[in-house]
Amino acid sequence: MYRIASIGGDGIGPEIIEAGKVVLDAAGERYGFDIAWEDFAIGADRYLATGELITEDDLADLSRFRAIYFGAIGDDRVKPGVLEKGILLALRFHFDQYVNLRPIKLLEGVATPLANKTPSDIDFVVVRENTEDFYVGIGSRFAGESEKATLEVVRDIYQVKFGMDVTTDAEEIAYQIGVITREGAERVMRYAFDLAERREKKLASVDKANVLSDVYGLWRDVFTGVAKDYPDVSTEFNFVDAVTMWFVKNPEWYDVVVTPNMFGDIITDLGAMIQGGLGLAPGGNINPQGTSMFEPIHGSAPKYKGLNVANPMATIWAGSMMLDHLGEHEAAAAVLRGIEQSITGRFVTRDMGGKATTSEVGEHIASLVLQH
Amino acid sequence: MYRIASIGGDGIGPEIIEAGKVVLDAAGERYGFDIAWEDFAIGADRYLATGELITEDDLADLSRFRAIYFGAIGDDRVKPGVLEKGILLALRFHFDQYVNLRPIKLLEGVATPLANKTPSDIDFVVVRENTEDFYVGIGSRFAGESEKATLEVVRDIYQVKFGMDVTTDAEEIAYQIGVITREGAERVMRYAFDLAERREKKLASVDKANVLSDVYGLWRDVFTGVAKDYPDVSTEFNFVDAVTMWFVKNPEWYDVVVTPNMFGDIITDLGAMIQGGLGLAPGGNINPQGTSMFEPIHGSAPKYKGLNVANPMATIWAGSMMLDHLGEHEAAAAVLRGIEQSITGRFVTRDMGGKATTSEVGEHIASLVLQH
Ligand SMILES: CC(C)[C@H](C(=O)O)[C@@H](O)C(=O)O
Ligand SMILES: CC(C)[C@H](C(=O)O)[C@@H](O)C(=O)O
Repeated sequence: MYRIASIGGDGIGPEIIEAGKVVLDAAGERYGFDIAWEDFAIGADRYLATGELITEDDLADLSRFRAIYFGAIGDDRVKPGVLEKGILLALRFHFDQYVNLRPIKLLEGVATPLANKTPSDIDFVVVRENTEDFYVGIGSRFAGESEKATLEVVRDIYQVKFGMDVTTDAEEIAYQIGVITREGAERVMRYAFDLAERREKKLASVDKANVLSDVYGLWRDVFTGVAKDYPDVSTEFNFVDAVTMWFVKNPEWYDVVVTPNMFGDIITDLGAMIQGGLGLAPGGNINPQGTSMFEPIHGSAPKYKGLNVANPMATIWAGSMMLDHLGEHEAAAAVLRGIEQSITGRFVTRDMGGKATTSEVGEHIASLVLQH
Repeated sequence: MYRIASIGGDGIGPEIIEAGKVVLDAAGERYGFDIAWEDFAIGADRYLATGELITEDDLADLSRFRAIYFGAIGDDRVKPGVLEKGILLALRFHFDQYVNLRPIKLLEGVATPLANKTPSDIDFVVVRENTEDFYVGIGSRFAGESEKATLEVVRDIYQVKFGMDVTTDAEEIAYQIGVITREGAERVMRYAFDLAERREKKLASVDKANVLSDVYGLWRDVFTGVAKDYPDVSTEFNFVDAVTMWFVKNPEWYDVVVTPNMFGDIITDLGAMIQGGLGLAPGGNINPQGTSMFEPIHGSAPKYKGLNVANPMATIWAGSMMLDHLGEHEAAAAVLRGIEQSITGRFVTRDMGGKATTSEVGEHIASLVLQH
């Protein structure tokens, strides 16, 4: 019996989570385990009603679960960034989910926008660092005299680097700080090396150490050090700009990729597209010793809310990753196989050229899992 | 008569610049202008011999030119970042070349890795800010007690954000700072809006304001303000992660894109790939009132140095952009047409499936330009 928290969130979030639960319950029935779900009404509606994003009570409650099944957040009535930072990133940071695991895998029957690439060419995993880098939320913005007392840092930077005096009303400046620590880099790299050992023993590290040399210089040094403990894994350094090219031109080169947070955000969306789009892109936010969280990487698509048309497959796949994380490897594989069978049988939602509804896809995959 | 500085640089740099000069000289002959070239021996060889990257004398000399024709830098004997920062970025910053202009255009006869896309689908321009953001080179890295006195900023950050005491020897931290100013954002945005007015009157701004809210919050506010002066240009905000998807799936959506420096670096490499790869990707570093610089965006490919096999087309295209910048619009168009004719006639280097050498491609395009 697994106790799992679910957060449907905003827009299409509750519908896709519902479809996912139907599949995971079926997997439990077939493979001999029960899931006790507990729902949390976190998201835009509550925020607009009460001003609460994540409360201390939420965090205390959620900490009792090994896994959270997360739908999507984002609402047109709320300024961009508020819900993302206040809920999604807050959960990732609070629970120290330092691995953001993103399989980039083209399933059978799925169309990729790349010419001449097949499922055997697109099958790798991105391990994105999930708690440091430019996601630490440190920065500031100021204009004119009024706030200058608190902004000595920026004023110094600006004077030294640009020879400009920032005490004038006319000038307006913002800065943002990224942080990489040895400890933070090392733990996610060890996770990636371990994964590489279980796969093709190939690991690429992605950075921009030729320009952002302070943070990514440290990143590279840590990588070089950790690599010594994994002599059988072959490694390489890639610059992030080049990686966007090779993902498109030669995705077959990659097996496991490890990358700092922000570049990870960017290249995993690109990865999602080459595997067929956001409708098929799941992600796991993992703390191997704590509370992990599994989600589709797409947004809340407010305009499709309540219409029962959204593609639940990314969410169902995220559910498969969650089962894998819980140790239910057979059930996890069955769920992924169910998704593939649903696709090759053309039982898909509108975005993939089919006619099925969100809930129908969930029920269909559940029935396929029960037949395995 | 135009006086133009040339910097061949490292690896294949001198060869591709030579091929480019042959074409631009031909364009001068055909369209009635002369170019007086002045070469600068800047690059890895001099650095290794004298320790000099860019000298004060270099900068004083170069400042007398309206344009620099730049090959490539990078050498296996030098640590990544040294030449890039010490030469290429130093020139961009010193001459305040605040616009990095990158046409993303699939030429006739060129293969794109995208399925079902033709030249009419891939034809847009990225305007990358070129002097701010995370390229300002501000950051630091420290370990242990010894350097802590100078690192109050990071220590404070670390304590406030992570509740950790960084005075221990065991901990190692690096930080990197990005800066956006109103002035810096506004000038590049005005350039992009002006360009959009001359094209399809569509401008997309690319950022990650939902997470890096300080720098890109200012970026968005400036954009919104500048947009008021261009009521006929339709605008939108895109997140950088999403943009990597749409460049691959729907490049036809884009006409002009404006973006901060680092994201610009990333998405223009992706753009280069969809237009056929680095062999065909030119860039201009523009200061409309000062010394501008035109270059292929690829690197120095040391292993092909001296073999006369490198593809000079990106460099020749960069030369076309340089002519355009100098006001020689007809000649610029003729050079680009010459490249296209050379491609459709299959007169191309090995990387594009042909047999021609670097110098032969240069001479061939020169002869085509003379026939226009
Ligand atoms: C919604 C946003 C804050 C988030 C991120 O930037 O990490 C998303 O893009 C993702 O990749 O999960
Ligand atoms: C070589 C490197 C410093 C440079 C950059 O990052 O700007 C390059 O990638 C580019 O895009 O011109």
